Amino acid sequence: MDRTRLESFSDGVFAVAITLLALDLTVAGPGGPHSLLWKLGQHWPAFVAYLISFFGIGIIWVNHHAMMNNVVAVTRPLLYINLALLAVVVAIPFTTSTMADYLTAGGQDSRVAAAMYAGIFELMGLAFSFVFEWMLRHDECLRDPLPATAKNSARLRFYIGQIPYLIAIGLAFLSAWVSLAIVGVVAVYYIFERTMPIPSVPRRSAR
Amino acid sequence: MDRTRLESFSDGVFAVAITLLALDLTVAGPGGPHSLLWKLGQHWPAFVAYLISFFGIGIIWVNHHAMMNNVVAVTRPLLYINLALLAVVVAIPFTTSTMADYLTAGGQDSRVAAAMYAGIFELMGLAFSFVFEWMLRHDECLRDPLPATAKNSARLRFYIGQIPYLIAIGLAFLSAWVSLAIVGVVAVYYIFERTMPIPSVPRRSAR
Amino acid sequence: MDRTRLESFSDGVFAVAITLLALDLTVAGPGGPHSLLWKLGQHWPAFVAYLISFFGIGIIWVNHHAMMNNVVAVTRPLLYINLALLAVVVAIPFTTSTMADYLTAGGQDSRVAAAMYAGIFELMGLAFSFVFEWMLRHDECLRDPLPATAKNSARLRFYIGQIPYLIAIGLAFLSAWVSLAIVGVVAVYYIFERTMPIPSVPRRSAR
Amino acid sequence: MDRTRLESFSDGVFAVAITLLALDLTVAGPGGPHSLLWKLGQHWPAFVAYLISFFGIGIIWVNHHAMMNNVVAVTRPLLYINLALLAVVVAIPFTTSTMADYLTAGGQDSRVAAAMYAGIFELMGLAFSFVFEWMLRHDECLRDPLPATAKNSARLRFYIGQIPYLIAIGLAFLSAWVSLAIVGVVAVYYIFERTMPIPSVPRRSAR
Repeated sequence: MDRTRLESFSDGVFAVAITLLALDLTVAGPGGPHSLLWKLGQHWPAFVAYLISFFGIGIIWVNHHAMMNNVVAVTRPLLYINLALLAVVVAIPFTTSTMADYLTAGGQDSRVAAAMYAGIFELMGLAFSFVFEWMLRHDECLRDPLPATAKNSARLRFYIGQIPYLIAIGLAFLSAWVSLAIVGVVAVYYIFERTMPIPSVPRRSAR
Repeated sequence: MDRTRLESFSDGVFAVAITLLALDLTVAGPGGPHSLLWKLGQHWPAFVAYLISFFGIGIIWVNHHAMMNNVVAVTRPLLYINLALLAVVVAIPFTTSTMADYLTAGGQDSRVAAAMYAGIFELMGLAFSFVFEWMLRHDECLRDPLPATAKNSARLRFYIGQIPYLIAIGLAFLSAWVSLAIVGVVAVYYIFERTMPIPSVPRRSAR
Repeated sequence: MDRTRLESFSDGVFAVAITLLALDLTVAGPGGPHSLLWKLGQHWPAFVAYLISFFGIGIIWVNHHAMMNNVVAVTRPLLYINLALLAVVVAIPFTTSTMADYLTAGGQDSRVAAAMYAGIFELMGLAFSFVFEWMLRHDECLRDPLPATAKNSARLRFYIGQIPYLIAIGLAFLSAWVSLAIVGVVAVYYIFERTMPIPSVPRRSAR
Repeated sequence: MDRTRLESFSDGVFAVAITLLALDLTVAGPGGPHSLLWKLGQHWPAFVAYLISFFGIGIIWVNHHAMMNNVVAVTRPLLYINLALLAVVVAIPFTTSTMADYLTAGGQDSRVAAAMYAGIFELMGLAFSFVFEWMLRHDECLRDPLPATAKNSARLRFYIGQIPYLIAIGLAFLSAWVSLAIVGVVAVYYIFERTMPIPSVPRRSAR
């Protein structure tokens, strides 16, 4: 089984999930005492959340893309691990809209919503770690396996990359805004950093 | 006609259907006497149903993938049989949300909703059996046809695999929960079992 | 420009449009004096309309698939003609849900809704006729162009195939049900007939 | 990294975004004093906006298609630039439905909504200009780079192409209708003009 359909199905799911984010871009219709600009202003957390989640899913897609590029033989367990990753990705629009709704309401609920939001990215990292471990353990399925001596340090770097989301979950209970800011900063970091968050993929494959 | 577009269209439909499941992941907005956690707790059947249906559709996709891998020539009847299968897949989000809505309400309606839910998976098995019969009867379209002597036992094993869903439909009228549990257990079984539910696909093609 | 991306984009649009049909598969939530079965029964036109439109879009996809199979060079006008066809396909879920909503209400509005429904399939035929004319006039872009002597009879057969939808539009103003039945019968006819509705595609390409 | 998955993911996003436009094609259900035809008539801005946005996204797709056709090596920055372009495309259905809702209400809000609508197309042009600059600066990633002497004139022609949207934003504050008409005329212009709006793509690749 080659990886073409795994990629084409995953691309479809990523594409739909990233587009469903836009369903939260709504604004109340005409009428009422307020102007359109005022109503748009009221919704600003939804617009910020849209951008963070859009690039969050986008980064997951870029990394998925880079990892799968290295896979030459797909096994059934990888298909199911990949499904678990997609199940998390597809839930991102839900946590995004929940957070956007509750953020301006403030109080304890806004902190729970922010923790959920950071939590879904942490779950995504967890699902990615299953893909990552599968790759470390199936050299025979890879075009370009890591040398055995490099595996533990790659593992270490990968798991360190999960820490910011754990911090964001914890800090959510102090401030929803700080938690959201961490998730946003991590997204920006991954966009501008040339180091790939998933170190098992050789740098040159990014050309 | 090769199978590329059949797969690409089917992958698209699977991807959209599996992502639409997430539209049921909603929670009431801020306000009211209850906390966000309480509201999420009220929705737990929707979250369980999301997971079962997500992996349910995912398993169908994996099997679709494995079967089509064996097809080298696509005929028009196969296109329409495949459409019938997709028509069932696309209805899964509807039966999922109906079941999630009615499960906590209890009473006779919850049992009807659970029977509908098990029923859509049974319909899916039925649609798959048309694909399966098409494959058994079109050796000339397959890369790797089953030997004639193995066809009847493959058929038997395939149809036995439909029995759990029939049981789930029947038991739904005793208990919605038992019915849902059976559908969930079947999904878990197919994930961990290495035997493919569609026996005409040679095991090695899963590599 | 080869046809890969034209097909992949079109397949995506077909897949989303066919899946959006399922958004009309809804039923009122628990509560109220009526049982779930009664509520489902009230919605039966939506279920019938879902099936007819699903196979309607499916047949368009099969024919699109078969026609494009014959194209080896894509020009910009073909991209825009194809876009026009997709714009019609994407409007099918809207006319489907409008018809389903108005059918049981009866009266003049149900007839207008049925005419709209038949009308969108007629528009689809019209958009297909632009693709068809493009193919008849660009032999140099086809793998397997029709001989010049066969073009007029192919054209005739193609345009005769549009007549049932025109009849369905006209009869809608006498009876919505008759109009719907004609659209459904045409769909069934195209599924079971081996003759392709678009005659320029040689039969053997269906293998 | 080749461009296959970049195209397949982008095609998925374009396909979902263009199909989501159809979610605004709705009409009030049966009942009330007005006929279906009257209700459809009330919604006419939504139908016009659907068509303009459908072909607007379609044109972006055609140009994306043509530009990517010239790319033989995909870098990570291009992936993120492409994500930014997609983030704009996915927001088009939102600005479309907002404009359709506010257009008939008139007043200052209709002008703000029209400016937003023209603005999203201007943002799209801006995102395209990043893709364009990437192409001008990465000859080594292109199959068919522009000669150095032609780059500045290509740049000039490209940026001149952005002016109509800027004018549409400005004129929106005088008249929403004039602004909408400009966006529509630009779409029609790009459909019938044989000159590609993105001049770095050699004309012959359109065959």
